[in-house]
Amino acid sequence: MPNVKAVIEYDGTDFHGFQIQPSVRTVQGVLESTLAKMLGEPDIKVIGSGRTDAGVHATGQVINFRVGGNIPIDRISPALNGYLPDDVRIKRVEAVNDDFSARYSAKSRTYIYIILNRERPSALLTRYAWQVMQPLNTEAMRDAVSKLVGVHDFSSFGMPDRIGGSTKRQLHNIIIGRRKDAVFFKIRANAFLRGMARVMVGTLVEIGKGKRDSDDMERILGARDRKTAGVTAPPQGLYLTRVEY
Amino acid sequence: MPNVKAVIEYDGTDFHGFQIQPSVRTVQGVLESTLAKMLGEPDIKVIGSGRTDAGVHATGQVINFRVGGNIPIDRISPALNGYLPDDVRIKRVEAVNDDFSARYSAKSRTYIYIILNRERPSALLTRYAWQVMQPLNTEAMRDAVSKLVGVHDFSSFGMPDRIGGSTKRQLHNIIIGRRKDAVFFKIRANAFLRGMARVMVGTLVEIGKGKRDSDDMERILGARDRKTAGVTAPPQGLYLTRVEY
Repeated sequence: MPNVKAVIEYDGTDFHGFQIQPSVRTVQGVLESTLAKMLGEPDIKVIGSGRTDAGVHATGQVINFRVGGNIPIDRISPALNGYLPDDVRIKRVEAVNDDFSARYSAKSRTYIYIILNRERPSALLTRYAWQVMQPLNTEAMRDAVSKLVGVHDFSSFGMPDRIGGSTKRQLHNIIIGRRKDAVFFKIRANAFLRGMARVMVGTLVEIGKGKRDSDDMERILGARDRKTAGVTAPPQGLYLTRVEY
Repeated sequence: MPNVKAVIEYDGTDFHGFQIQPSVRTVQGVLESTLAKMLGEPDIKVIGSGRTDAGVHATGQVINFRVGGNIPIDRISPALNGYLPDDVRIKRVEAVNDDFSARYSAKSRTYIYIILNRERPSALLTRYAWQVMQPLNTEAMRDAVSKLVGVHDFSSFGMPDRIGGSTKRQLHNIIIGRRKDAVFFKIRANAFLRGMARVMVGTLVEIGKGKRDSDDMERILGARDRKTAGVTAPPQGLYLTRVEY
């Protein structure tokens, strides 16, 4: 059975996250049931590069699945987009080697987090950004992230997918920028612990507000204790934008 | 009782339009019940510059209402934003003359319509743009709109609010632009008939696709018959952005 890789986009608002769960709407669940309906094969398994939490969006999530040999590869994307609900879309599809796994073959993941940083709230960005009214000092936040880059035990920022799993990850970089009222964080790592991107952003926002010092980051990382880090930033500002293989 | 003018923003997705209706969620209904709760006055009437349909957004809708004299004007906006749901926000508030009406004092309204014009659909813009896959010829659409500017009977494009009402309106201008995959229409008129902005955009899109000729617009306007115009563009691409007094 040919192995198919697809890059997908979704609006996480109305999903209980990526991973399939009984009796709630998830991205994996919608993809598997749509593929089953479209192809008449009940047991198609979709593998994602990683789980995203409820409310988290994706513009570059990668999945793979196996289909019967009689389906032309260039028909899969338009056909699937015809069957899928509006809030999940296939961006592109390609045939890959049999040993390709969207999860285990991934070399790095990139997330972008968007904050609307102004006093006046917005009704139209509620689902797509975290609204922080207090001014954020981007310089202080930039000073803090230099301590995080590299291979570290990130257990202060998140949990492994399975009990006893490694909490070591390689953080390649964090870029922090501002454009008018938007502050964004671009975070690239070989892989992320559960909650890692959102706890990093939550902690950085406390530094940006002046509630914590930039130097605090080194102590938090060294403590290997979730209680030392800051709040978990809300899910709607987070986007999985790219997975590299 | 002081007369208060407010500029508001809302995400129209989860509203059955602006105008209050029994047993459905409307912008006016939410504003009136929130003001009643906040001020302890049950009968506050909110007047809007105009009705927007279900799914239509606003970044610059204007309303007015009367409140008891003991409320400092600069406290109304933060207090009301504290009580309102996330998808309606007060942008600014000012005290106005007693004879000011958001509806009858308005001199012009501006709407912007946004189309995502590319082959690949987007999951994240479903609620905020019309996705048109076939390439649109913006030059042909620009040629067509010159016929619409001025004072005309626009009954081919919409209906008056009340039976027998005038169908004459003054269209000040329509600007059509493209920026990457986005095509936008900025339409300014003294007032709009019901459906007018969306039927104009729907008709222009048929011209942009080459299904109709640019010259067709003059015939449509002259016919004064809704059946001669094109489809009604869907609501989620439309934004009420500005009202002038």
